[in-house]
Amino acid sequence: MTTPANTGSALWSAQAHMPSVLGRQLVIARGEGNYVFTTDGQRLFDGTAGLWHANIGHGREEMAEAAAQQMRTLETYHVFGRYLNDRAVELAEKVASLSPIADAKIILNSGGSDSIDVALKLARRYWQLQGRPEKTMILSRDLAYHGLHAYGTSVAGLDFNREGYGTDSLVPDTARFDTHDIEQVRRTVAEIGPHRIAAIIAEPVQGTGGVIPPAPGYLEGLQQIADEHDILLILDEVITGFGRTGHWFAAQRYGIRPHIIAMAKGISSGYSAVGGIIVAPEVWAPFYRTGAPIYRHGTTYSGHATSAALALKNIEIIEREGLLDRVLHLEGVLHAELDALAGDDRIEETRVAGLLGGIQLRPELSAERVTDAMVDEGWIARPLRGNVVQISPPFTTTDDELRGIVAATVSALDVVAADAKADSLAVAR
Amino acid sequence: MTTPANTGSALWSAQAHMPSVLGRQLVIARGEGNYVFTTDGQRLFDGTAGLWHANIGHGREEMAEAAAQQMRTLETYHVFGRYLNDRAVELAEKVASLSPIADAKIILNSGGSDSIDVALKLARRYWQLQGRPEKTMILSRDLAYHGLHAYGTSVAGLDFNREGYGTDSLVPDTARFDTHDIEQVRRTVAEIGPHRIAAIIAEPVQGTGGVIPPAPGYLEGLQQIADEHDILLILDEVITGFGRTGHWFAAQRYGIRPHIIAMAKGISSGYSAVGGIIVAPEVWAPFYRTGAPIYRHGTTYSGHATSAALALKNIEIIEREGLLDRVLHLEGVLHAELDALAGDDRIEETRVAGLLGGIQLRPELSAERVTDAMVDEGWIARPLRGNVVQISPPFTTTDDELRGIVAATVSALDVVAADAKADSLAVAR
Ligand SMILES: Cc1ncc(COP(=O)(O)O)c(C=O)c1O
Ligand SMILES: Cc1ncc(COP(=O)(O)O)c(C=O)c1O
Repeated sequence: MTTPANTGSALWSAQAHMPSVLGRQLVIARGEGNYVFTTDGQRLFDGTAGLWHANIGHGREEMAEAAAQQMRTLETYHVFGRYLNDRAVELAEKVASLSPIADAKIILNSGGSDSIDVALKLARRYWQLQGRPEKTMILSRDLAYHGLHAYGTSVAGLDFNREGYGTDSLVPDTARFDTHDIEQVRRTVAEIGPHRIAAIIAEPVQGTGGVIPPAPGYLEGLQQIADEHDILLILDEVITGFGRTGHWFAAQRYGIRPHIIAMAKGISSGYSAVGGIIVAPEVWAPFYRTGAPIYRHGTTYSGHATSAALALKNIEIIEREGLLDRVLHLEGVLHAELDALAGDDRIEETRVAGLLGGIQLRPELSAERVTDAMVDEGWIARPLRGNVVQISPPFTTTDDELRGIVAATVSALDVVAADAKADSLAVAR
Repeated sequence: MTTPANTGSALWSAQAHMPSVLGRQLVIARGEGNYVFTTDGQRLFDGTAGLWHANIGHGREEMAEAAAQQMRTLETYHVFGRYLNDRAVELAEKVASLSPIADAKIILNSGGSDSIDVALKLARRYWQLQGRPEKTMILSRDLAYHGLHAYGTSVAGLDFNREGYGTDSLVPDTARFDTHDIEQVRRTVAEIGPHRIAAIIAEPVQGTGGVIPPAPGYLEGLQQIADEHDILLILDEVITGFGRTGHWFAAQRYGIRPHIIAMAKGISSGYSAVGGIIVAPEVWAPFYRTGAPIYRHGTTYSGHATSAALALKNIEIIEREGLLDRVLHLEGVLHAELDALAGDDRIEETRVAGLLGGIQLRPELSAERVTDAMVDEGWIARPLRGNVVQISPPFTTTDDELRGIVAATVSALDVVAADAKADSLAVAR
């Protein structure tokens, strides 16, 4: 075996082409509000809120104090069997109170991928228990991202995340349907047969797929199909949950009432690894009746006390600072800024839902090169599938900062377009 | 739908039969050293270190300070693509330096189940990349526990965790082999055909299965089979990693050199949700070469900066306080105490490996009732499969506390045996 010369540190980065990131890595060492700082001292506006999670901004003193106080009292105790801890109970009550699902039960865990796997396992387990063993299929949207544990990988609508394991779907019995066309969804359900379908899972606003808001009537259509055909509807609100669309949940914005909601990111704004699912009574009740079986699930850090304390403090901050209203305001600003780009023929389309914006570039202008050029000027944005530039800063962003990052995108486009022109002239010569 | 009368709080507990735990839940609200306290003020010795994770004990001031300090500086930044944070890099270096695998790369995440799913996906991905697409099978031990995301569920050797989803194995292409008999393992491998096997996964000491140390030569046998047949060997050190057997890794205790190690729990002693995998150069190198594909994996909280800072501080404490040696000493005490029970005919067998003890009771004496009786007297132990009482306190346990919990088990056995006798007399009458 020959080891390549530069293999960097011992850390294997996430979703990274290691041979090409080595030598150009950005090491973040400090965060303050809407900015982060590299070890070299470069100050960067966090225009994506990390991975759409740092909703209350970075390095909050109040969060540091909440963590320390809880850790001094009880860093954690597990919630298996007879055991609970007071913070886990409190967080579950709080989430249930904000939830669009009345009388919900909450399973807590440590992230979005966790939430997907437990939601999909629960959907399968539920139908087995209802005496409908043939209901095992999980349907998802083209371009969907649902995390990367084995079940999330299997229902991925982004092929590059599902491929490479030697089968079409690690967990079989999955299928995908159209992202926009509800009639095509109906046809897919009819072809597969609703009696075989356990659940439909969908991000209300698709994130990693390229910031794709739902077509009018689409989510309502999914709800109708689910209700008509005894199919569970699972909303993946890992990005949208806890305010990103100006409501606690996108389900509330779009008037949907799913059977299960998957959550993570915004619940703690990334201060601690927390996720979970919100479960409707018709799904949990069969596990709570006398003679019911145990739902055989649980992870060590389910209901982690310090993680829960941080989530509670984060929710308190969102409430106290009126950040949901702030998001609705910023959505207006972002909309106006992106609409103003309509005449720019280097841009194919712009899309906004809440404080989630996507700028889709013409194929010859690489979103990756544009976001690299933005970083050089102090602005973090992220390239997404479909040659899209992601803009989703913290809720605490100012109007000027939001306008600034849109302007920075245009400047970076100028740089990259000029380079592209120079390149093509060089080739022509 | 009729909702049962008492459905408790909104929190759906882990691995719990909800109808029977409601009304008898223990809510933990404080922890200090080797003790935790319920909201009712009851003081309990944590004889299991929670779920075998609280290795440095509860409520450490130094950990609280480390959390607060890191959060003030940078609660986290992600490690996708070009981005890193300094704490994640530092933790990866530290883990690599303690690891039994030279020149290892580290993928970080948020728990043990995460680590299993990414390890098994990587094993599959690796063989696809080596041009051996038929190598998709994952073999595991009977009685194995490997977490409960979709892949961990599929390789479970405890049937109750694998069953109920409508198929034998959520992710197909799994098989189990004998827990003790290496010749039977050889036969299973031969029957399936080594050309179809991607990996063998094993806990060096089985935990949830009932505290089962490896038979002499068994782990060495697995290593030999793996080496002979081009099979990856994955050790699940989620329980054993970071000192539980008196070495940083059980691989070192037993002289094994696996291709991948899964870790969680002990890396942070549960102060934060951290896990990860340690990957040998022969497995990572194909992803680091020029022209290599991206390993398409990553979770938002991979390399979480505060989680990493807490893991680093935890490892520092284990080193500074000499806790590995302490574990070896306590293993001796536990061995002596459990050997002394040899004459008790209510006990079928006792087992010890490191600071992991199991007391297997005769079937007519329920380990669940015994551990409930122990809690009443202030001692936490846990019933495991096979009617086993789990004893695995923090590394900071005193000799007297360890003797105390063994004595408490015997006292609880007296109570439960007396009850059982009274019950059977009542039935006879
Ligand atoms: C919609 C959606 N679902 C699930 C996940 C997975 O969450 P995590 O990365 O915390 O595992 C993500 C993460 O980006 C996401 O965007
Ligand atoms: C051996 C083993 N592997 C994996 C896991 C799963 O870890 P987690 O509960 O952190 O997901 C556990 C948890 O008990 C374990 O004991």
